[in-house]
Amino acid sequence: MDITVLSIFPRMFDTLNESVIGKAQEKGLLNLNIVDFRDYTTDKQNHVDDSPYGGGAGMLLQAQPIYDAMDAVEKKTPGKKRVILLDPAGKTFNTKMAKDFAEEDNLVFICGHYEGFDERIKDLVTDEVSIGDYILTGGELPTMSMIDATMRFVPGVLGNNFSAEEESFSHGLLEYPQYSRPADFRGKKVPDVLISGNHEKIRIWRLKEALRKTLDRRPDLLKTIELTDEEKKLLREIRSEN
Amino acid sequence: MDITVLSIFPRMFDTLNESVIGKAQEKGLLNLNIVDFRDYTTDKQNHVDDSPYGGGAGMLLQAQPIYDAMDAVEKKTPGKKRVILLDPAGKTFNTKMAKDFAEEDNLVFICGHYEGFDERIKDLVTDEVSIGDYILTGGELPTMSMIDATMRFVPGVLGNNFSAEEESFSHGLLEYPQYSRPADFRGKKVPDVLISGNHEKIRIWRLKEALRKTLDRRPDLLKTIELTDEEKKLLREIRSEN
Repeated sequence: MDITVLSIFPRMFDTLNESVIGKAQEKGLLNLNIVDFRDYTTDKQNHVDDSPYGGGAGMLLQAQPIYDAMDAVEKKTPGKKRVILLDPAGKTFNTKMAKDFAEEDNLVFICGHYEGFDERIKDLVTDEVSIGDYILTGGELPTMSMIDATMRFVPGVLGNNFSAEEESFSHGLLEYPQYSRPADFRGKKVPDVLISGNHEKIRIWRLKEALRKTLDRRPDLLKTIELTDEEKKLLREIRSEN
Repeated sequence: MDITVLSIFPRMFDTLNESVIGKAQEKGLLNLNIVDFRDYTTDKQNHVDDSPYGGGAGMLLQAQPIYDAMDAVEKKTPGKKRVILLDPAGKTFNTKMAKDFAEEDNLVFICGHYEGFDERIKDLVTDEVSIGDYILTGGELPTMSMIDATMRFVPGVLGNNFSAEEESFSHGLLEYPQYSRPADFRGKKVPDVLISGNHEKIRIWRLKEALRKTLDRRPDLLKTIELTDEEKKLLREIRSEN
């Protein structure tokens, strides 16, 4: 997969070498290309931003350096591309979108800055994406998060544990509580059932605790999944215990 | 403000020096302390994870290294702390939470890995936070995003443009389209009204376009704000145009 990032802070992406992305590159599963779009400005002072027409505070990212950088990207890796721009008005990024991106051959992320950008940049873009209801200084950190979340779905990037983990997530319940050694840590003990060796009891306990947490924290998720008879029975038990 | 991060990938945080966080540290507004909690494990092979009681795929972050690292943090910076753990079952991070964190003197972020962690770690935690409905390899990238979003609300970190920008965001509408030079770029023109010099017309155009985009993309936001008579009138116009 080819991923190109347009950013004026290319060195920020060095941090990805520490993570699963670094390994994906070593394995030849990812060709990550960071483009400093400041290299493409025709401005004599090397600026890539300018004040908005009509007045107002803040500077805007200009169209020219982005268009020219995209022309260069197109020359280097021609063909169909998903071009992603972070925008608070975009669709909120989620696992489904990550899976979707993972099936592409060619992704481009444009890292703007939240003061805004020239509207004409959007003509280059296939996906306007919001990372959540909060503001960051620049698009670099959320772009790295999206690349990480996406690469997890590219076959070969993660190890064997992956499918199991995903299955649990895609079932739609929150995770049950988990414990590892020691069984007694500073007086805090692991629930007896988990060291009982009775696999059926452990399964039921975990399912019930996952349902309990989901009911407590994210009852909306329960509406999106089809519950089994066993799950319905456990939910009735949980409700009667409260 | 003191921010402490517990992570086994401390070098990933170097990337923050490139951003507003680096400047906040230079100005003395932030004391950022990255703690490699692997230094605190009592395991002979230096492991910080172990398999879960009761069986199952994946490894869990153990309680011991986190508890001992937190004891060391407490010695170094005693007193009240917000201790934040990323967890898909937590409250979703947003601007309100960032503002809230910005008023604290002492924040601690624990970067787990999404295979899971020993439940007893939660006894140390004041805030379980979700960054969104997607999975990342580790807590480092979302922690950096939260630090960035939080520091923006610490007085002195950003420049003069800050208050204006925030005002626009907190008004609850999505941003209107913006344009900067040139007025004609590759045949794509800036709307006439923005170069008219008529400030009242520009104000109304912007308000109407912000309402139009919000109605189109995030109609839920319109329910959370109290609309002025002018805004109601513009919304009626937009609806009649469709």
